[in-house]
Amino acid sequence: MAMLIASRRLSCIRTAPSSSCSFFSTSFFREERDTFGPILVPHDKLWGAQTQRSLQNFEIGGERERMPEPIVRAFGILKKCAAKVNMEYGLDPSIGKAVMQAAQEVAEGKLNDHFPLVVWQTGSGTQSNMNANEVIANRAAEILGHKRGEKHVHPNDHVNRSQSSNDTFPTVMHIAAAMEINKRLVPNLKQLHTSLHSKSVEFKDIIKIGRTHTQDATPLTLGQEFSGYVTQVKYGIDRVLCTLPRMYQLAQGGTAVGTGLNTKKGFDIKIAAAVAEETNLPFVTAENKFEALAAHDAFVETSGALNTVAASLMKIGNDIRFLGSGPRCGLGELILPENEPGSSIMPGKVNPTQCEALTMVCAQVMGNHVAATVGGSNGHFELNVFKPMIANALLHSVRLLGDASASFEKNCVRGIQANRERIAKLLHESLMLVTCLNPKIGYDNAAAVAKKAHKEGTSLKEAALNLNVLTDDEFDKLVVPEKMIGPSD
Amino acid sequence: MAMLIASRRLSCIRTAPSSSCSFFSTSFFREERDTFGPILVPHDKLWGAQTQRSLQNFEIGGERERMPEPIVRAFGILKKCAAKVNMEYGLDPSIGKAVMQAAQEVAEGKLNDHFPLVVWQTGSGTQSNMNANEVIANRAAEILGHKRGEKHVHPNDHVNRSQSSNDTFPTVMHIAAAMEINKRLVPNLKQLHTSLHSKSVEFKDIIKIGRTHTQDATPLTLGQEFSGYVTQVKYGIDRVLCTLPRMYQLAQGGTAVGTGLNTKKGFDIKIAAAVAEETNLPFVTAENKFEALAAHDAFVETSGALNTVAASLMKIGNDIRFLGSGPRCGLGELILPENEPGSSIMPGKVNPTQCEALTMVCAQVMGNHVAATVGGSNGHFELNVFKPMIANALLHSVRLLGDASASFEKNCVRGIQANRERIAKLLHESLMLVTCLNPKIGYDNAAAVAKKAHKEGTSLKEAALNLNVLTDDEFDKLVVPEKMIGPSD
Amino acid sequence: MAMLIASRRLSCIRTAPSSSCSFFSTSFFREERDTFGPILVPHDKLWGAQTQRSLQNFEIGGERERMPEPIVRAFGILKKCAAKVNMEYGLDPSIGKAVMQAAQEVAEGKLNDHFPLVVWQTGSGTQSNMNANEVIANRAAEILGHKRGEKHVHPNDHVNRSQSSNDTFPTVMHIAAAMEINKRLVPNLKQLHTSLHSKSVEFKDIIKIGRTHTQDATPLTLGQEFSGYVTQVKYGIDRVLCTLPRMYQLAQGGTAVGTGLNTKKGFDIKIAAAVAEETNLPFVTAENKFEALAAHDAFVETSGALNTVAASLMKIGNDIRFLGSGPRCGLGELILPENEPGSSIMPGKVNPTQCEALTMVCAQVMGNHVAATVGGSNGHFELNVFKPMIANALLHSVRLLGDASASFEKNCVRGIQANRERIAKLLHESLMLVTCLNPKIGYDNAAAVAKKAHKEGTSLKEAALNLNVLTDDEFDKLVVPEKMIGPSD
Amino acid sequence: MAMLIASRRLSCIRTAPSSSCSFFSTSFFREERDTFGPILVPHDKLWGAQTQRSLQNFEIGGERERMPEPIVRAFGILKKCAAKVNMEYGLDPSIGKAVMQAAQEVAEGKLNDHFPLVVWQTGSGTQSNMNANEVIANRAAEILGHKRGEKHVHPNDHVNRSQSSNDTFPTVMHIAAAMEINKRLVPNLKQLHTSLHSKSVEFKDIIKIGRTHTQDATPLTLGQEFSGYVTQVKYGIDRVLCTLPRMYQLAQGGTAVGTGLNTKKGFDIKIAAAVAEETNLPFVTAENKFEALAAHDAFVETSGALNTVAASLMKIGNDIRFLGSGPRCGLGELILPENEPGSSIMPGKVNPTQCEALTMVCAQVMGNHVAATVGGSNGHFELNVFKPMIANALLHSVRLLGDASASFEKNCVRGIQANRERIAKLLHESLMLVTCLNPKIGYDNAAAVAKKAHKEGTSLKEAALNLNVLTDDEFDKLVVPEKMIGPSD
Repeated sequence: MAMLIASRRLSCIRTAPSSSCSFFSTSFFREERDTFGPILVPHDKLWGAQTQRSLQNFEIGGERERMPEPIVRAFGILKKCAAKVNMEYGLDPSIGKAVMQAAQEVAEGKLNDHFPLVVWQTGSGTQSNMNANEVIANRAAEILGHKRGEKHVHPNDHVNRSQSSNDTFPTVMHIAAAMEINKRLVPNLKQLHTSLHSKSVEFKDIIKIGRTHTQDATPLTLGQEFSGYVTQVKYGIDRVLCTLPRMYQLAQGGTAVGTGLNTKKGFDIKIAAAVAEETNLPFVTAENKFEALAAHDAFVETSGALNTVAASLMKIGNDIRFLGSGPRCGLGELILPENEPGSSIMPGKVNPTQCEALTMVCAQVMGNHVAATVGGSNGHFELNVFKPMIANALLHSVRLLGDASASFEKNCVRGIQANRERIAKLLHESLMLVTCLNPKIGYDNAAAVAKKAHKEGTSLKEAALNLNVLTDDEFDKLVVPEKMIGPSD
Repeated sequence: MAMLIASRRLSCIRTAPSSSCSFFSTSFFREERDTFGPILVPHDKLWGAQTQRSLQNFEIGGERERMPEPIVRAFGILKKCAAKVNMEYGLDPSIGKAVMQAAQEVAEGKLNDHFPLVVWQTGSGTQSNMNANEVIANRAAEILGHKRGEKHVHPNDHVNRSQSSNDTFPTVMHIAAAMEINKRLVPNLKQLHTSLHSKSVEFKDIIKIGRTHTQDATPLTLGQEFSGYVTQVKYGIDRVLCTLPRMYQLAQGGTAVGTGLNTKKGFDIKIAAAVAEETNLPFVTAENKFEALAAHDAFVETSGALNTVAASLMKIGNDIRFLGSGPRCGLGELILPENEPGSSIMPGKVNPTQCEALTMVCAQVMGNHVAATVGGSNGHFELNVFKPMIANALLHSVRLLGDASASFEKNCVRGIQANRERIAKLLHESLMLVTCLNPKIGYDNAAAVAKKAHKEGTSLKEAALNLNVLTDDEFDKLVVPEKMIGPSD
Repeated sequence: MAMLIASRRLSCIRTAPSSSCSFFSTSFFREERDTFGPILVPHDKLWGAQTQRSLQNFEIGGERERMPEPIVRAFGILKKCAAKVNMEYGLDPSIGKAVMQAAQEVAEGKLNDHFPLVVWQTGSGTQSNMNANEVIANRAAEILGHKRGEKHVHPNDHVNRSQSSNDTFPTVMHIAAAMEINKRLVPNLKQLHTSLHSKSVEFKDIIKIGRTHTQDATPLTLGQEFSGYVTQVKYGIDRVLCTLPRMYQLAQGGTAVGTGLNTKKGFDIKIAAAVAEETNLPFVTAENKFEALAAHDAFVETSGALNTVAASLMKIGNDIRFLGSGPRCGLGELILPENEPGSSIMPGKVNPTQCEALTMVCAQVMGNHVAATVGGSNGHFELNVFKPMIANALLHSVRLLGDASASFEKNCVRGIQANRERIAKLLHESLMLVTCLNPKIGYDNAAAVAKKAHKEGTSLKEAALNLNVLTDDEFDKLVVPEKMIGPSD
Repeated sequence: MAMLIASRRLSCIRTAPSSSCSFFSTSFFREERDTFGPILVPHDKLWGAQTQRSLQNFEIGGERERMPEPIVRAFGILKKCAAKVNMEYGLDPSIGKAVMQAAQEVAEGKLNDHFPLVVWQTGSGTQSNMNANEVIANRAAEILGHKRGEKHVHPNDHVNRSQSSNDTFPTVMHIAAAMEINKRLVPNLKQLHTSLHSKSVEFKDIIKIGRTHTQDATPLTLGQEFSGYVTQVKYGIDRVLCTLPRMYQLAQGGTAVGTGLNTKKGFDIKIAAAVAEETNLPFVTAENKFEALAAHDAFVETSGALNTVAASLMKIGNDIRFLGSGPRCGLGELILPENEPGSSIMPGKVNPTQCEALTMVCAQVMGNHVAATVGGSNGHFELNVFKPMIANALLHSVRLLGDASASFEKNCVRGIQANRERIAKLLHESLMLVTCLNPKIGYDNAAAVAKKAHKEGTSLKEAALNLNVLTDDEFDKLVVPEKMIGPSD
């Protein structure tokens, strides 16, 4: 925070007579310059003139709105690969190697403090690309024994060589999203799937009342009920993975408008290969670079998959909190783990807090999806300029879903116990076992039995005997919950 | 349906040699013409060339996507008022009066069959404006003893005089929305409010367990619980009414781009006054016609109010179905009216079907709101061209919310009964009455009592006595649900 | 409309003394009955008691809100297949065959008038399932020479045999969606793809200015620009197809809660096979029936794919209208086909009406997607009860996107012409050709040239010569648009 | 960041043998306890056991997902007021005053580092309430000379006295939102309004071509065009202000379920008055506390107002970037201020970056609105448990809209210049001046003139003379742009 405030305060300095700035400029600041002229930059920071200008021009949202870390790190990966490939095309190897080393530090998150820009900037992400170029150039210069700001290594001519913000930013969007999905979201969803599956197996013999329309229905096992959740999560993983082929397509090589002007033939393929090697993910060059710059359909699509996962997890979270409702006046079929005191006023109450965190995340993911859709649909001509917002929305959703799945799995699902006593009690009080009379006495008679029992508060059996539709023995042979949990032979 | 198919089949005729069309043109069709040339129109229809062309150019969605009836009727109102005002500015009175009479028939819905165009047309609604102009011109001509298609009364020069689609369509959007809100939505919400309020009063002495986090909480009365719903609906009505001042502003008089070119000074004020008189609603001319054509913020705003009402009704519908869940394995505190057999396989089961219809409507309203927002945000320069979609989305939401509120009130709320026995049973089994021990024995002791009772399945009292934190008498004096439903003196 | 009003008026009759109804009941109505008792039904309609009750209980939205036709037809397919499979399991063949014949009529749309129910009903679609059962039972009875209402063929015991609304409705949702996607949406998107591709080829040699940030940028060919659209539509088709494997999974055989109670083993597989054969689509039985009833993730997912297609088409529609803007004060690079007179006040103006219809459709699809998501996330326990709304939202989107794609292709894309003169003029006035100076004179010098030309309103060449950074010859050799539309060798 | 990692690492310690922790516990940590037992807390932090537990249970999203600062500060305000009122009801004044002093520090943001919890926690915000209670209790104890963790001042019994998370959290939501709206959003929107209004006045005499359907239309002044934006922003402010009456209603005094159990009569009114005094905003106690806890319709409503503002600003931002497009191949009517070098590859290009930041913000606000709506609609029974998400979504939107409006105003609107030369050139080339021939020669003739000029690339006048519909003089008298920007006398 201090940093942001400090550097923003500089905006006044820009127009101040230089004399009054002498103390600052010689002590805490150095001068950097771009095509707009000179500007002061904090001397302990690696960024240059364009980053500084952006800081001053986009005071939107404050520090928590900084470009997400996965984007910053992806810039490190990309710039490293670009230097490597550029050396094949004639970049001075000493400079190239220093750029690679500096970029590697960015990729490892070591220079995060030098990326102060917020999401709400130029819609092409130009300023974050320049931030990466400037930081890497200054750091590479230092590695080679030169001073910051001298441009021994040039942000544009060396670090950004053969590139444009218009192709680097969509490239890092794809790298960051693919990595976060593969390293954070999918493993956590898989762990959740495994844990739900274990519960489904653990609960496979517990017969319980079903509920449709929130009303009592025919029975099923608790394991069957959980198997629905297992399938939802499994398909959710499939849905996310299905979108990756288009996410693995990189725009790099398209430069400013998709034509690849100012690159050499083959550059696009080589750099995608380098990124693939660096990340161990199957990146390839985009089939059509015009689409890759002008649209972010791949993000809208992937966001749609996350939206579906959110709908699934909302359902699961809701079910589990309702099934665990109580302790005495709810459904009470599940016992959820106690992780904290629930209420500041009601002692002894334990709340389904993990379900709550999860479902809140799901709501936000649905919202972020709309944001990504609106941004994705509003591209014009050769460039969509909602890039940082789209990237941020998707990465936010990936992070939240990934973390919340892990938290929910670890702090809730894993510890869920069945309240067998309560489940059995509810099952046997239910009227809905009447359904198994259908094949024997017909729909209309069965309905009459159920209605009578309901009205008089009696058991189904009493009602059936009173109506003379069945004998005692017949009833007992027909109404067997164990026979009601699957099709008959 | 037959009509649509018949008239669409004509598209082939347009380019066919005229000889082969002689049978058609002399028998079932007449020729109409516009600046594009002649075109055949079914002879039993009042519309003209531009309507016919639109039918053929926009085969999107079929008959159920026709421009909503309230828009058609609002065109009738507007064209009647326009003729009236235009007579003040020199329109031939015999023509003016015939136009007024024809327009009145449109306003009354008598000519609905002559408005075949779908929502998915020109984004300014031009074609529906021309449809209105053509139908009214032909009908007015007939009234004056002339033939259809002869343009004795001219769609543009007479019916559309001093108008442009660009100001008429937003005007009818506002008229239609304001009327539907005043005549359908608000009265039905008020009826729902009244009915919920009656229930709140009816249930004012029934003390029940509260539920927070879906878990048992301190008690309240069922009347208090319903009073929350009453307030939600009351504020919902306020929210909708709050948006009307901007809805009552009419674009009419702005003509093509908002300047009012081709109108006379004062035309805008006079026509708003005429519409106000005709509809008995306080319409005024828009303060700024440029905004009124180029943006539909008033619709986005009103849609936001409907979205809030939908969020409220979703909450209420969900609560009522959960409180009415059972009959034996749910919460069972409410008894909902039985309107139909619930399930085709489970006899005796009665489902909260009105809650389901209502909550489905709420979901659609939330979706329509996003559609209206996307359309509203995508206007360019002097004209927003998502007009028919925005109008349709809002009118759809108004209709659905209005009808569903009425249905829910009539077929559900009105007949809700409290299951007093069940409510009392749950209340007295609850552990959460422990809260009233807080002031006496402190938070930590109270927590210990509740935990002990929960763990051992005993009553609170047994636990409290066992822990020696209270005497029997003290407990009975402290734990009085009746004293727990409000602040103390 | 007449029908709806007529049958709704009956609601009063339900509680009226039977004597006062004698005229009605003997002349225009017949008595039908269900477990709720008798009710009058219009004698010319095939539906029965439960349909009639629903008509009276859900007066929401009116006729245009009827259950979509593809759902009705899918019920015909399903009930035909069910009868066929049920005969294998013992259903009386004479009844079975009559049911098949009646169901076939429903599948062909011949009995559409007998399906009056609206979307806004029970959230399981129970009433539409019963509508199908009742209509088919009465029609099958007629085929066998019996009277309507006698239940010679029983709606539940025969037509709905081995089924529940809870599995039939999701089954018809999947059948209807898969058919509409395969028969309407995908072919129309493919046609649009083909047409855009032809344009891309046609325009492959037309070099034009690129635009990023809506600002002038380096050149590309108009064919390249269109190739981006081609890729967007191509991937859009892929995205939709990717979701079908989960759409082809049928819930049928799960009955009330997913267990398959009251069916025989193998019923689920056989019926999926029968549907596959009937529709020629690769339907299979759902891997997990609990998921198939309790969630509609497959619909949320597919809706997400449509949402992505909508984002793509919104981008394309916007580009084409802006590129076609003019005639004299816009970009004017494309000439769009003239389909109708544009404005009622501005003669000679031709508007991009197909783009407008298309983009309005896209906005509605985005809205419907939110509706489907909200519905999909709100399922509880063994049954999601937002089924009709979800089905309607998706089918609406499929229909609108399919029809609008066809209309846009036929009435716009196919007829787009390049305004070669205008394109060339803009290209050569542009400053952005400066980019090709970068490799020769460096970024900073190139920037200076462009700035000078911009400031002084001169050509780039003049500015470059004045700044002495290049000779005349060098400039001409470097600035060759034809060399700027791809990477260099 | 370091802090978060450090404190989370403690989770292992919880179950570790105490011996191995001796170093830690005596040096860097102290023991705190709640009803769950003891737990180690970093000794330099003021929070207690429940905060620490939450840190470990909700590792979701990392540091940038912390509860927004306005919520933390609002807790300071609320707890200060609560102590003040509680002293009237018997709270020990020495403790009360210390609590007030500590709370004041929270209100001033001095203790922000002691609020580490993320948004994604318990849905009632309980843990953030306890965080506030713990921090204030420990700080107040220190003020009184006692040690942290000794509970000389008790988080529940003293700081949270007469309160529940269930009423404090919605109260701070309302305080934070109302303050942010009044202090950040509305002033910035007003500044934007003022600045747009100045431009509208500055541009009042510049006549330009209008554009509808993105096509050339009749003229207006640039001032008129901007007046539309002025009105949009003005109404936007009205829309936001309209929602405040419901935002000023505070839930405080409802305690756990809305009944006010464990408070004294009058507490609710007194505390609302105290908050009003403290904040200088007209807060009152909520009319119905059940609604105030169970629903957040006020947030959904206000979010809807922000959504409308976002739709407005999206429109304005789009218009300005298109009107400023160029420099040579766009519309070029506006000259936007140059704040930074635009592209890393295209020298001399200046992009509408402020428009891009603004429109990205608008897209996110639309997304957050959906998130708030989903959360708002999913409350159950006596408590909505999507509180932190809803609060975060709204506060995020308020912050982004407020900051982006300021940035857009300062860095863009204020510096916009009209390109008078370009505007005049376009106007005089336009065909659409033809509209002023309408009243004289009729619609059909005027259309013919325009079509002819368009086809032959000539001026309107040439076409009109060639068609013999007007003389030279007549044309010049009729076609006067200055007469086309308003209605005639």
